[in-house]
Amino acid sequence: MKFLFAPDSFKGTLSAEQVCAIWEEAAKEVMPQAECRTLPVADGGEGMVKALHSALGGTLVTCRVHNPVGKMVDAQYAVLPDGSAAIEMAAASGLPLLSQQERDPLCTSTFGTGELILHAVRGGAKKIILGLGGSATNDGGMGVGAALGIRYLDGAGAELLPCGGNAGLVETIDLSGVCDALHQVQFCIACDVDAPLCGPTGASHVFGPQKGASPQAVEQLDANLAVLGKKHEDMTGLTLCTRAGMGAAGGMALPLVAFFGAVLRSGLDIVLDAQNFDEQAAWADCIVTGEGCTDYQSAMGKVIAGISKRAKMLGKPVVVLSGALQVEECCTSLRELGVSAMFSSVVSVRPLEWQLSHAEDNLRFSARQVFSLMAAVAR
Amino acid sequence: MKFLFAPDSFKGTLSAEQVCAIWEEAAKEVMPQAECRTLPVADGGEGMVKALHSALGGTLVTCRVHNPVGKMVDAQYAVLPDGSAAIEMAAASGLPLLSQQERDPLCTSTFGTGELILHAVRGGAKKIILGLGGSATNDGGMGVGAALGIRYLDGAGAELLPCGGNAGLVETIDLSGVCDALHQVQFCIACDVDAPLCGPTGASHVFGPQKGASPQAVEQLDANLAVLGKKHEDMTGLTLCTRAGMGAAGGMALPLVAFFGAVLRSGLDIVLDAQNFDEQAAWADCIVTGEGCTDYQSAMGKVIAGISKRAKMLGKPVVVLSGALQVEECCTSLRELGVSAMFSSVVSVRPLEWQLSHAEDNLRFSARQVFSLMAAVAR
Repeated sequence: MKFLFAPDSFKGTLSAEQVCAIWEEAAKEVMPQAECRTLPVADGGEGMVKALHSALGGTLVTCRVHNPVGKMVDAQYAVLPDGSAAIEMAAASGLPLLSQQERDPLCTSTFGTGELILHAVRGGAKKIILGLGGSATNDGGMGVGAALGIRYLDGAGAELLPCGGNAGLVETIDLSGVCDALHQVQFCIACDVDAPLCGPTGASHVFGPQKGASPQAVEQLDANLAVLGKKHEDMTGLTLCTRAGMGAAGGMALPLVAFFGAVLRSGLDIVLDAQNFDEQAAWADCIVTGEGCTDYQSAMGKVIAGISKRAKMLGKPVVVLSGALQVEECCTSLRELGVSAMFSSVVSVRPLEWQLSHAEDNLRFSARQVFSLMAAVAR
Repeated sequence: MKFLFAPDSFKGTLSAEQVCAIWEEAAKEVMPQAECRTLPVADGGEGMVKALHSALGGTLVTCRVHNPVGKMVDAQYAVLPDGSAAIEMAAASGLPLLSQQERDPLCTSTFGTGELILHAVRGGAKKIILGLGGSATNDGGMGVGAALGIRYLDGAGAELLPCGGNAGLVETIDLSGVCDALHQVQFCIACDVDAPLCGPTGASHVFGPQKGASPQAVEQLDANLAVLGKKHEDMTGLTLCTRAGMGAAGGMALPLVAFFGAVLRSGLDIVLDAQNFDEQAAWADCIVTGEGCTDYQSAMGKVIAGISKRAKMLGKPVVVLSGALQVEECCTSLRELGVSAMFSSVVSVRPLEWQLSHAEDNLRFSARQVFSLMAAVAR
């Protein structure tokens, strides 16, 4: 029996690597002939660069760029073995880089993220994998664009500072200063939210408040993104304002999609592709995945759902072995996604502290049971 | 795939019959071609007659006999389809039949149980299945013996009342009054304790206090059983005082083993045999059993252990699906007994009340997962 172990981390207790080791030990104990491959998965989000780098290797590059309010900050990105660069916008333009007082999406800018992209491209990168998420900005990508050579002009032809508060003033977008090399680059954007650019479910309304926007500022930011989005649509003929995911990271993908052919994908799909998940899954007889607690979110874009969908396409059974299961929430939808069976390492009625402090033993026990059952039935 | 479902009841939540129904529904949902046989199991103890009667049919007979302190009481036994009688000593001589004040094992007697046996034999029973457990007595079987025609005489040749306080006075045991029919009867005694007749782990010390014996009375009762046991050993040449199980129900089996060739077996084995367990298990591809909570006791003579041992002899996989598992306690020993894999219907960290009130849903969920995994692997 060939197993592919592809767990998320069990947050708060075990890393994905530890989970893989426990499963492999349990499987080989019960089925000495079992072949196991391990593929610890991260879901893209804010740990994407780390996940890609630890899975694939490559080099980490540190670069001094502008943070969302213009102060200089050291930000890191990864150059992967195939030469592509993996960049997280949060490294240069993330909310944690700002003090509470600095958090104001009318003023913040994604300029630093653009600097990172430019640095990577100048270093030779032909592909940029860009992770959204955790942004301090709501600038519709004006900062990124400005760093890449785009000029945003107001009705009087004056160049605008690239920030959320100025997005509504843009009358002209001038691409003439963009260097040719950038048009040869393939942009792949990791995006795990469905929010459109503007409107009540858009970037400003959903994410603005957590970035420090007052209710009035939210209205202003939303109106600004509508203007800026419309401008991009008019220039390209593309539908951008209502496209799912364009609201991620304060609309930062806007110029990249409009002018550089960037594609939005789920962070997980990007990571799984980079790890050759499909090839490994095709080799396996059974894929085992899991996470700390499987609940209704698990069916909506998290690791388990993503893996199950792919396994279903390949016709492979998926077994979920998580720390705990919220039965009523996850059962039906995960089954529809392709999960064959779900198990929990919680098997007794005991307090959370006990379960957490016994996470490793419990997981080992449950894993043994699952593999034992397979061995008994397959015999 | 052929399943034999043989659960114990899930105490406090679901009957064994309900558990069987849930499992059958779940199995057929996942594997429409699955063949299922159900065999709700009881472990002998105080529910043995009910278990045998509901599993096999037959008639219930009510009979007016003496309770442990000589009052008349209606007691029920079952005549099974093959003509054998299933009797529980607790029906005539059980502790719940007495008020708190009446509980004194120096005075109580198993006479009523002997009357039940005699009634069944006069009704034509050639085999008596006798369940021990729950007794109010510590009379070394004097009461049973007396009802069956045995006379217990003291040193002066006077007949003794059959009760725990008199057992030490027995000088002569006169079998001449026992009717011949009784010697044709096969006695099978269900006994689920290992206690010997006397000594520190014997009937009086272990069970005397809960029957109302003071510390002084316990010493007296123990000494009395030693005298009575020695008398039976001297008459028969059998080893009786130290034999495991002879201390069950206050030593009640003593005359039956000594003079009527009774054999002691576990209640579970008697019930499983009566239900043709081995035949059903041989038919099945997989046996599923379970109980409310699987813990260290599960490895010591309870339903799960008994079923696992038999299944192991037959080379059949056993899956345990219980309400909860106390992992550290049960894991190794149950595996050694032959359990292939153990699962719990508790899969989340929630309070006991929630788990109990959702027992049915939780069990259905977990059963689906187990059957789904089998289906996925067997596919």
